[in-house]
Amino acid sequence: MTSQNKERIRVGPISGFPEWGPAERIVEQQMLDIIRTTFEMYGFSPIETSSVERNEILTAKGSEETERQIYRLTGLHPQTPEDAREYSLHFDLTVPLARYVAQHHSELVFPFKRYQIQKVWRGERPQHGRFREFTQCDIDIVGDESLDLIADAEVPAVIYEIFKALNIGPFNIQISNRKILSGFLESLSLNKLQTSEILKEVDKIDRVGQERLENQLATAGISKSIISSFFTLLGLCGTPEEVLKILTDMKGISEKFEQGVQELQVVVEHANNFGIEGDCLSVDLKIVRGLDYYTGTIYETRLKDHPQLGSICSGGRYEDLASYFINRTLPGVGISIGLTRLFSQLLQANLVSIGSQSIAPVLVTTPEPHSRSNSMKIATLLRTSGIKTETFLDEARLTRQLRYASRKGFAVVLIPFDEDLKAGNIRVRYMDKSEEVSVAYGDLTQILSTYR
Amino acid sequence: MTSQNKERIRVGPISGFPEWGPAERIVEQQMLDIIRTTFEMYGFSPIETSSVERNEILTAKGSEETERQIYRLTGLHPQTPEDAREYSLHFDLTVPLARYVAQHHSELVFPFKRYQIQKVWRGERPQHGRFREFTQCDIDIVGDESLDLIADAEVPAVIYEIFKALNIGPFNIQISNRKILSGFLESLSLNKLQTSEILKEVDKIDRVGQERLENQLATAGISKSIISSFFTLLGLCGTPEEVLKILTDMKGISEKFEQGVQELQVVVEHANNFGIEGDCLSVDLKIVRGLDYYTGTIYETRLKDHPQLGSICSGGRYEDLASYFINRTLPGVGISIGLTRLFSQLLQANLVSIGSQSIAPVLVTTPEPHSRSNSMKIATLLRTSGIKTETFLDEARLTRQLRYASRKGFAVVLIPFDEDLKAGNIRVRYMDKSEEVSVAYGDLTQILSTYR
Repeated sequence: MTSQNKERIRVGPISGFPEWGPAERIVEQQMLDIIRTTFEMYGFSPIETSSVERNEILTAKGSEETERQIYRLTGLHPQTPEDAREYSLHFDLTVPLARYVAQHHSELVFPFKRYQIQKVWRGERPQHGRFREFTQCDIDIVGDESLDLIADAEVPAVIYEIFKALNIGPFNIQISNRKILSGFLESLSLNKLQTSEILKEVDKIDRVGQERLENQLATAGISKSIISSFFTLLGLCGTPEEVLKILTDMKGISEKFEQGVQELQVVVEHANNFGIEGDCLSVDLKIVRGLDYYTGTIYETRLKDHPQLGSICSGGRYEDLASYFINRTLPGVGISIGLTRLFSQLLQANLVSIGSQSIAPVLVTTPEPHSRSNSMKIATLLRTSGIKTETFLDEARLTRQLRYASRKGFAVVLIPFDEDLKAGNIRVRYMDKSEEVSVAYGDLTQILSTYR
Repeated sequence: MTSQNKERIRVGPISGFPEWGPAERIVEQQMLDIIRTTFEMYGFSPIETSSVERNEILTAKGSEETERQIYRLTGLHPQTPEDAREYSLHFDLTVPLARYVAQHHSELVFPFKRYQIQKVWRGERPQHGRFREFTQCDIDIVGDESLDLIADAEVPAVIYEIFKALNIGPFNIQISNRKILSGFLESLSLNKLQTSEILKEVDKIDRVGQERLENQLATAGISKSIISSFFTLLGLCGTPEEVLKILTDMKGISEKFEQGVQELQVVVEHANNFGIEGDCLSVDLKIVRGLDYYTGTIYETRLKDHPQLGSICSGGRYEDLASYFINRTLPGVGISIGLTRLFSQLLQANLVSIGSQSIAPVLVTTPEPHSRSNSMKIATLLRTSGIKTETFLDEARLTRQLRYASRKGFAVVLIPFDEDLKAGNIRVRYMDKSEEVSVAYGDLTQILSTYR
């Protein structure tokens, strides 16, 4: 069978499973590096959990919406190990963290600070900005039986450093405390279930409007004037000082309400000590997160100039990480960056600039076939001084080598003619300016040191 | 339901899905960083393919042994998207590379040099050193219609730099060319299938001995004296110079044989130019790899002091990467480090030293509760100068903070008493020596600069 009339298998993207070209991947990796470095700078240690968990672990909390999204493994071939069906791909990094901490409780040192940058999978209906496979970047601080509130201030400090370094425009870390709204609602004799349902509705208010919430409150028997106060509360949004001033003036609502206000105050004060600049942090009482899992401090993060991207980094405080798996109370606080979603949105909105397909800024050509070993030695010299360098590996005319350099996006091309080298020189071509200069060979690594 | 009598879900390892503690993960990540940095230093650009491929892509080559290992996705819940069953987790990074290159052929620049560091999954029977989920680190150089032999020399040069930097003892990159043995066998009028079967047997010779191979050759009608010459050939092993001298003296066997010898000679010469030191490279004709996919140069890598680990890095030249997917001949050369297997074996053999659970070398304590903001400022100062620093986040007596530091494995603990700070000093405790000194606060980042 010749290569020409072989039947070929169709190739193409799989909906919901994103894949980038090298140029995009280089930028995504730079973002991941910034995130990882910042996590580590604050002493979060890396862990990686297996991509699969036993089914009963993933379904321990039993939300049908989540279960619908779980990818279970099975064999493609009848002889694939039978036990494959007992486990599924994880859909977040929180359940794996809970299982990991429970399993390794005796070996870990608490407060346990870990980061995890891994793929997660969700069988969602693919749609704009939703992926079935995506990278999450999570940090958590987990205490054993207790965890000081100051941890709630370190988490946004880390996020602040990351978004400053990512340099994707001004951002706003919005903070609240779930006890404030739930303390208000419970003071109206609403039970926990009703409170939880209402908070879920608050979480959606930006998308679906406030009418549904109004009806829900009215149905629960709340009077018009109290509904109106609730919306006033929800509308509180501004600098921590402004909002906290109003909140501390509201007395006698409920113990839980006051606890929430007090916690928020402590967290905001510490956040200042951690160095978060004022205009990057605001209090917004509409921030609740939809999950009952969160019990105190809550965070969301938005790009000021691009509110349509929604929250690009969210999390909060929880009081019970792992009681499904271990007889200990493990409170914690954490936050998660959905990097794939963020990166794809930044790409679409042209907020990151995509450059070269080459990770190396420098290409060493071979202008004369016999001088290959020179090219290799020059490349070794540059690499030794920390400059990523490719050598052109095919035999080809110089014009073809330069076309390759231009198409692939090298910044600098070295053209080591024998004659030049003998005179102690080498030609350096700066591709963006199409400028070619002859420099002293001895100065080469110094001249190119900005490409390190 | 109180936390005490809740029914708990059993947690524990899943056979074949390895997971490390933070201290192990820190070391594994250092190894991954060395691998990645070296790949990039040589101009290999990063790509990442989705974890799943369509089933027909994974099974294009149709080996039943491979198919038995494929994990297909399905829904845990009846409502998981139906199309999940159309794709499976990839079992290597070569098939995904072939599909990726075919799919993006028009956007990529050739020779396409990429690296990929990703998880792969194989539903193997778990056994010593075999995993169902593991990280592979692959590089490939893929040409469009042709690729110069010099590429075959760059690949071991990269591997040489990596194993030098990993610092896990002396190693040996073994190189051969598949054309030599297959050229010899074809000269005996064996057909391609017979040749392929014999080379598969050669690949297993270290494990199963040479008797099976002898019988196989005899059954194929090969005379005793020729079998004996074949084993002489197989036994050739030594420095490139030694072995090549013998090989070039063997004239008239077949054109393919001579082509193999000539290619091997060119590759070895270039490898020297790339800076591989002599005693790290040897020629060993028993190196064939079991796959017919490989058609020329072949590599394996072994630790000299630990031959029982087997090959820790293997690969070779292939002449047709992707003709199942695209009507182009895409020859290439690549190599793969099975990092998970390597790392777990190094752990077991005590060849890597596992240190601290903390990624940060420095802990700033809070010796007096009111001085927390001092601790935070000191930590910020150190981070700004590039030193990973954790602040102790709970309120606790100093002795408990020091116990935490000791258990978690910090190298240095700072104890910022107010009084000391006012006098311009700070206490630095070196944990390994249990030594505490008072230093000038202004010199702190300088003194700790080795922890950067």
